[in-house]
Amino acid sequence: MIDLNGRNRVVISNVSPMVEEGRYPAKSAEGEFVIISADVFSDGHDEIDASVLVQYPDTGEWREHDMDPSFNDRWSYRIKTEKIGKYSFVVQGWVDHYATWRKGLKKKYEAGQDLKVELLIGADLLAQALSKSTSGHKKLLNSWISTLKKTDNTEEAVMLALRDDVYQTIRQYKDKDLITVSSELIIETERKRAAYSTWYELFPRSAATAENAHGTFSDVKRLLPRVARMGFDVLYFPPIHPIGEKNRKGKNNSLSPVEGDPGSPWAIGNRTGGHKDIHPELGTLEDFKELIQEAKGQNIEIAMDIAYQCAPDHPYVQEHPQWFKWRPDGSVQYAENPPKKYEDILPINFETEDWENLWLELKSVIDYWIDKGVTIFRIDNPHTKAFPFWEWMIREVRLAHPEIIFLAEAFTRPRLMERLGKVGFNQSYTYFTWRNTKAEIEEYMNELTRSPMRYFFRPNFWPNTPDILPPALSSGGENAHIMRLILAATLSSSYGIYGPVYEFGINDPHPGKEEYTNNEKYELKHWDWSKYTRIKEIIVRVNRIRQQNKALHTTWNVTFAETTSDQILCYVKNDPDTNNRIAVVVNLDVHHLQGAHVRLPLGELGIEPGQSYKLKDLLSGSTYIWQDEWNYVQLNPFEMPAHIFTIEPNI
Amino acid sequence: MIDLNGRNRVVISNVSPMVEEGRYPAKSAEGEFVIISADVFSDGHDEIDASVLVQYPDTGEWREHDMDPSFNDRWSYRIKTEKIGKYSFVVQGWVDHYATWRKGLKKKYEAGQDLKVELLIGADLLAQALSKSTSGHKKLLNSWISTLKKTDNTEEAVMLALRDDVYQTIRQYKDKDLITVSSELIIETERKRAAYSTWYELFPRSAATAENAHGTFSDVKRLLPRVARMGFDVLYFPPIHPIGEKNRKGKNNSLSPVEGDPGSPWAIGNRTGGHKDIHPELGTLEDFKELIQEAKGQNIEIAMDIAYQCAPDHPYVQEHPQWFKWRPDGSVQYAENPPKKYEDILPINFETEDWENLWLELKSVIDYWIDKGVTIFRIDNPHTKAFPFWEWMIREVRLAHPEIIFLAEAFTRPRLMERLGKVGFNQSYTYFTWRNTKAEIEEYMNELTRSPMRYFFRPNFWPNTPDILPPALSSGGENAHIMRLILAATLSSSYGIYGPVYEFGINDPHPGKEEYTNNEKYELKHWDWSKYTRIKEIIVRVNRIRQQNKALHTTWNVTFAETTSDQILCYVKNDPDTNNRIAVVVNLDVHHLQGAHVRLPLGELGIEPGQSYKLKDLLSGSTYIWQDEWNYVQLNPFEMPAHIFTIEPNI
Repeated sequence: MIDLNGRNRVVISNVSPMVEEGRYPAKSAEGEFVIISADVFSDGHDEIDASVLVQYPDTGEWREHDMDPSFNDRWSYRIKTEKIGKYSFVVQGWVDHYATWRKGLKKKYEAGQDLKVELLIGADLLAQALSKSTSGHKKLLNSWISTLKKTDNTEEAVMLALRDDVYQTIRQYKDKDLITVSSELIIETERKRAAYSTWYELFPRSAATAENAHGTFSDVKRLLPRVARMGFDVLYFPPIHPIGEKNRKGKNNSLSPVEGDPGSPWAIGNRTGGHKDIHPELGTLEDFKELIQEAKGQNIEIAMDIAYQCAPDHPYVQEHPQWFKWRPDGSVQYAENPPKKYEDILPINFETEDWENLWLELKSVIDYWIDKGVTIFRIDNPHTKAFPFWEWMIREVRLAHPEIIFLAEAFTRPRLMERLGKVGFNQSYTYFTWRNTKAEIEEYMNELTRSPMRYFFRPNFWPNTPDILPPALSSGGENAHIMRLILAATLSSSYGIYGPVYEFGINDPHPGKEEYTNNEKYELKHWDWSKYTRIKEIIVRVNRIRQQNKALHTTWNVTFAETTSDQILCYVKNDPDTNNRIAVVVNLDVHHLQGAHVRLPLGELGIEPGQSYKLKDLLSGSTYIWQDEWNYVQLNPFEMPAHIFTIEPNI
Repeated sequence: MIDLNGRNRVVISNVSPMVEEGRYPAKSAEGEFVIISADVFSDGHDEIDASVLVQYPDTGEWREHDMDPSFNDRWSYRIKTEKIGKYSFVVQGWVDHYATWRKGLKKKYEAGQDLKVELLIGADLLAQALSKSTSGHKKLLNSWISTLKKTDNTEEAVMLALRDDVYQTIRQYKDKDLITVSSELIIETERKRAAYSTWYELFPRSAATAENAHGTFSDVKRLLPRVARMGFDVLYFPPIHPIGEKNRKGKNNSLSPVEGDPGSPWAIGNRTGGHKDIHPELGTLEDFKELIQEAKGQNIEIAMDIAYQCAPDHPYVQEHPQWFKWRPDGSVQYAENPPKKYEDILPINFETEDWENLWLELKSVIDYWIDKGVTIFRIDNPHTKAFPFWEWMIREVRLAHPEIIFLAEAFTRPRLMERLGKVGFNQSYTYFTWRNTKAEIEEYMNELTRSPMRYFFRPNFWPNTPDILPPALSSGGENAHIMRLILAATLSSSYGIYGPVYEFGINDPHPGKEEYTNNEKYELKHWDWSKYTRIKEIIVRVNRIRQQNKALHTTWNVTFAETTSDQILCYVKNDPDTNNRIAVVVNLDVHHLQGAHVRLPLGELGIEPGQSYKLKDLLSGSTYIWQDEWNYVQLNPFEMPAHIFTIEPNI
């Protein structure tokens, strides 16, 4: 007659994590904790209870976990997501009649009221449980019922009724009819490297030993031990496909290339092939496959750059003219940002009526390289390709290959950045590159980690890229490079550098731009990989610190500490599983010594008030004994712009 | 093959207003403005456009309104909801190829580039519009196409392409295939009194002229002109049903009533009837119906109190024993808050297996009284009855009678208060009663008006009720009563008072409680309605100010002003339709004269910087000329604790 179950009095609302009204899964990574929470309440004053039913991705089994109430009717359960795959969950809540009765009984007992009828009510509740019990509980329940029904010993009956084991037994027989169940939501757990990864970017063509020679995959193979020793586990190359010859750009993005100019790797495709081919000068497909395997042996994954765009001489233009926009003069529309023209790049028209074949072909590029051993894709400018394509493509790829990681190379407006995370990208470039002051860094980190973004946008912090030489680095020199590296590596569990220029102190901007001059995008470089630099030594140390401290393997655990100077930034990270406590103090002023009192959030770190504690600076090796919240720190950027402390209670 | 329309590049997200993921409608009232907004964006750099399609409740017709972009890809449209009923809406967004082309053309033109091919592209876009046009536009479009195709006069072609009328014409022929459409959401518009109402509560049984006589509906009829003159438009009575005789409470809630004690009106039902009957001493059903009609003639609606609970002698107990919980001793479970017992009240068991019949009967109570002319129901303790019942009942009642208003009398935890609003209550009691300091009032108002609550929780501010004599009133005397009344009446567009005690200066608390002693809930009172009080005169003035100033007819337009004293609260309200600008300044210190500089948000009020403006205090009649933002105010609570200014530019 009335189309609902009207007896379900418990309300469940504001379930978290929930991304875009449940349309997208929330993200987690292997070993990370996720707090599942909801408002759970009922009318009236009855006691209620709540649990979460979780379907585990490995076994497919549903398990029930008790939720705990905090304040304002919020209930939560902290789950450690240990397996890759989808954790489905529903929150459920019910009125707990036995707990309600028991609570009332206790108060009435304490008030000295007559409890005869009350105890009979309790016996009825036990009898209801008895009627549902199938197991060895029957005998137990029967004996408890007798005790409650005995009228000669109220004291004994009350003591029984208040016993926790009695409560826990009854609790197993709750009336399933009256349980309210939320909609099903999903947490998708990705492999650990999706959340904790250390990236080094280089152009393979600049890896040659001989000056002026074009580097090859074999040259890169020789560099692998160096990359591994420096502590990087992802080695990322700009596109390795044939480079367009038509409208090729010269050095410094000039329109007049000269003989021998190699062109931009992002201008993809020529008569020798397109997105499924390898630029002949880099080597063969076999060389590339070998390099991937060799890297894997050294715990390095090769990240491939996928730029879905074409040089004018890409084979797609002839084979699939319907995937491009054609101009009335019979030419293909090139990329432009009027009045600027990018005539070496043809964008793909995602509004083509042949979109299904286009999507299938673009996905086949990914599948092709997965087949060759690639496990990580860095996607170039994903915000200039249709979002529905990414949603479909990433979902399909990850259904077959859940280990694949996609990094979104988008530096664009906030809603677009967020959307790429929602539709499936596992990592994203961020605004970190331009967040410099204490207030900027704190605000941005809080947005990333304490807003709903935490569940769909996983940051990867890059101090620089081949496209971006931020003012902080071009004006701040070596000190700034060290300081920004330490920030990236300790704020975010994934970070990366466009390595050679970073290591070797190159930071001349192209006039009027936030870009490197004589950019490697348009010319071969030759690097002296054996050269000593202070920066390199610190990179090695910082990456070792990251490896050895689990608190740095997640981004979500950052908490900022109060300091008495705008130039001194301080934050802590804690891994409760291993009691690994990290405090980082950074001097943001690269030109001057700065000092400040900092106030460590000791509660967050599990340090008792008044207890003294030992700090060991993992960068310098020095140790300190501190007590109480407030202590003084001073940092000289010409020595070391930061402390990375581990903290131990001083016992 | 791929199951979606992959060419729809525009994304629509975070649509507002959306209550509980769209499960419940957002609320508005006749004549109120609602901002419909959404994130609307596309990949890439194309221009996009967005509109909202609204289905109007009166005609059922769908109309399209352009949305305007603000920052961060947020688009909005401000709709005035003028008709009672449901406004359905969907947001739609699309890539605007003509606008994209036009913007590029302008830049290329300004850069002096060759435009021949560009103009042909524009001609193609016009030709696409032409192919869709069915009307008289064909000729126009053809002539524009010729102009763009003429190669001899680029200047003329560019000027044509940039013309706004050309753009507006093309815009009508957008490619419907490529429009992204959001899910449908609903704004439910209620009649004006749901949002703007002025309540007076009295016990009809205390309305008699003669001392010790039991008041009747006829006595109340004589008071109607007084209520109307005071500016109230809702007259609310405690329950008017037969009062239980079994376990009846005596004066001051005592368990030992004496002969003649009338009992609490909330202990409903005895041998003479229940929720569909009238307490015989108040009069007959005919008297009540007459009173309702007489009140309507004076623009007063009678609000009926519905308390879904029973005295032990309520007919339901015999007729529907299955709706109650029975104790093992054969008695019905009474209400309790252990160890306290309320033996005059039997709660209804909403978990009864006979819940459908229960719900139908409870709804029939409402229908019965609607049939007798009642249009407003004040629901007693709705948070102790099952939420699904309210959701169903209010929806069903309002389907047949959209004019009915339900006020939720819940003073409970935040999530429960909110839920009652979501499931359909049109008005709610609030925490205003206990918000006293400047910070408390500002924070609470901002929560009500600037959080998602704004769309489902409509406040009704009560300084007191028969259950609640807050410390501010019991300790603050007449000055406090005046100050709290002005706050309630100007912060919230709906407010009410439990009137007689408020007017006549009664504020003695029952020892240890926030409640009146010798509470009218348990005894007849006799009031001298003709007695002069300062409070009464101010109530009359304040209610007249409310009537005459449209800025006070909505709660959502409040903006707080900075002041230099914690004792001086200042806020403005603006009605842009009528240029009615109100500023209220209140001295929160009822014992001392206080002064402060206040900084009026002139931008909010449409006053130009540097312009002088005239303030007229509607309470005192005084006028002032102010200039600039900061001005000084001083208030003596023994004279008048507040200014209620209208503001006019001083021309």
